[in-house]
Amino acid sequence: MLHAVIMAGGSGTRFWPASRHHRPKQLLALSSEMPLLRITADRVVPLVGAARLWVVTTASTAEATRELLDDLSPDHILAEPTGRDTAACAAYAARVVLHDDPDAVCLVLPADHVIPDEDRFRSAMAAGAAVVEAHGGLLTFGIRPTHPETGYGYLKVGARSFDQNGWPVHALDQFVEKPDRETASEYLADGGYLWNSGMFAWRATDLLAEVRRQLPLLSDGIGAIGDALGTAAAADALDRIYPHLPKTSVDFGIMESARQRWTVPVDFGWSDVGSWPALAGDLAADERGNVARGRTVEFESRDNILVGDGVLIAAVGVRDLVVVATPDAVLVVPRSEAQKVKDVVEALRERGWDDVL
Amino acid sequence: MLHAVIMAGGSGTRFWPASRHHRPKQLLALSSEMPLLRITADRVVPLVGAARLWVVTTASTAEATRELLDDLSPDHILAEPTGRDTAACAAYAARVVLHDDPDAVCLVLPADHVIPDEDRFRSAMAAGAAVVEAHGGLLTFGIRPTHPETGYGYLKVGARSFDQNGWPVHALDQFVEKPDRETASEYLADGGYLWNSGMFAWRATDLLAEVRRQLPLLSDGIGAIGDALGTAAAADALDRIYPHLPKTSVDFGIMESARQRWTVPVDFGWSDVGSWPALAGDLAADERGNVARGRTVEFESRDNILVGDGVLIAAVGVRDLVVVATPDAVLVVPRSEAQKVKDVVEALRERGWDDVL
Repeated sequence: MLHAVIMAGGSGTRFWPASRHHRPKQLLALSSEMPLLRITADRVVPLVGAARLWVVTTASTAEATRELLDDLSPDHILAEPTGRDTAACAAYAARVVLHDDPDAVCLVLPADHVIPDEDRFRSAMAAGAAVVEAHGGLLTFGIRPTHPETGYGYLKVGARSFDQNGWPVHALDQFVEKPDRETASEYLADGGYLWNSGMFAWRATDLLAEVRRQLPLLSDGIGAIGDALGTAAAADALDRIYPHLPKTSVDFGIMESARQRWTVPVDFGWSDVGSWPALAGDLAADERGNVARGRTVEFESRDNILVGDGVLIAAVGVRDLVVVATPDAVLVVPRSEAQKVKDVVEALRERGWDDVL
Repeated sequence: MLHAVIMAGGSGTRFWPASRHHRPKQLLALSSEMPLLRITADRVVPLVGAARLWVVTTASTAEATRELLDDLSPDHILAEPTGRDTAACAAYAARVVLHDDPDAVCLVLPADHVIPDEDRFRSAMAAGAAVVEAHGGLLTFGIRPTHPETGYGYLKVGARSFDQNGWPVHALDQFVEKPDRETASEYLADGGYLWNSGMFAWRATDLLAEVRRQLPLLSDGIGAIGDALGTAAAADALDRIYPHLPKTSVDFGIMESARQRWTVPVDFGWSDVGSWPALAGDLAADERGNVARGRTVEFESRDNILVGDGVLIAAVGVRDLVVVATPDAVLVVPRSEAQKVKDVVEALRERGWDDVL
């Protein structure tokens, strides 16, 4: 049967101060009035049903996640004792789903992306799932680029193998790091490169077989956690073993050297909402270019992003700024430097100001 | 006997969002860890004693004022039912003080100015009080200008009459509106102009006599309020009459046409702390020119004024900004446009967003 696993363990430092340790990006209503994770769940439920939807999150956000997704069985919200990157997350989820369904095919999806065309999204996901169900192997979905984006990693596609439900299925050639502007333009012109979406499909058994072959320590750990599933020792095994699992990503720890790899190029609108300016691109601006959330007062201000979380923002005579205000922390930064919010979060951590993290 | 009356009825919109309707400028700890009104009271108590210190404030801040000045008798905190400008305030205070002391000489002082050299301040105040006690008339203190300030009104001094305790006493020639830059430079070069400090000295009887002569409606109202003092009808008379008193300032309603006017030029450091940039001038900046109150994180930011009222401010890559953050409202404005905060407050009022006023 087809299952979906939403990876919702992000720490979301790029949306500080709206995002916090206990309230990461996927729990925020960034793109609409609904939290991203809720939107992601609603997007995939028509395909797999709520009974085969699973969410992996961290212990600190498990409670808030269960409240948000109260239509899911609480035991479908898996809580990592601590984040160990996506390879551990995907393997753990595969092992849990396998305990439930020995023939499980898994779609693995990030919790915090924006995809407006839900029908086309589900059509592509169904096609990818059909590929791995029929042929095995690990499949990653790639987004056809619409502009020379430097903020994403890329996939180099290989030969086209066949079509599935109208979607082309290619061999996956290689993963490519985030390019500079010139290289990104070459990728766009070349046509053989896709944005790495972080969305995957595989049989649970195939994923675990690749983990066993490539990451034996991870495999052993997940195996021990899996053996305890359904017993009184399950929680203890998870707490004891999980924090020591090898920390690597699905892309580099598993996909890069997997024996059989597919990619399906998809062309639905997609954004990973990776920064305040990226989010603003998904929202409507007023006639002066200002994008505002919450109550604002503006005079002679242009092209600002003003996000007030229960806080009124008055912006006078400023332009191209990002201002994010919460009751205990405020960020002010030019749009062009918004990625430096990571440095702010790091500085707060160094100073021990955990109350605003 | 010498009394001091502190006028603490300001609405302080220029320090929004730190200042609010219920917490105006004089109740804020702007220049140090202590509220300006507390500092003002402590500055004058050594001269007059707490038993002859009076504070006029508005009903909405009377409770907070009594808490702040808990060394004063509660009935020395006079609460205007609503603000009616300084002429009404000064006349009301004079009438109340007169009820207590028929020979009262009053120093009348703003609640929200910064005057670091307290000894010199008290020396000047004592001299001014001695002048009016001996000779009658209304006296205003003028600050010798140190730069061509365009933000203050000026006093044109007349002939020097005599010295009092080492301070020169002049006739007061006229009040002059805030000048433009060129005119302010002429005033500075001329030497015959002083900044209008809003500090006064007079016998209570002399002030009330001038009010009777120039502002009969105000005089009648204050008279009726005064007649009820010490009776059960006092509060009712105040509430009934005060809101209808003529609204004018001491400067233009009383001093401008007073029969006998003095001014004492003083040369102690003085600031009326009229805006965020003016306040910043009184505070220490770090090596990058940033003036910060509260917890801040700064990267590549210069010459900003960052005031966090229990709110952390992270400023990245910005310069010459004023950022004032409170738990429910944030202001972002270039230093050079900080006076526009008044427009913000006006806009909030128009929109009915009283919760942040």
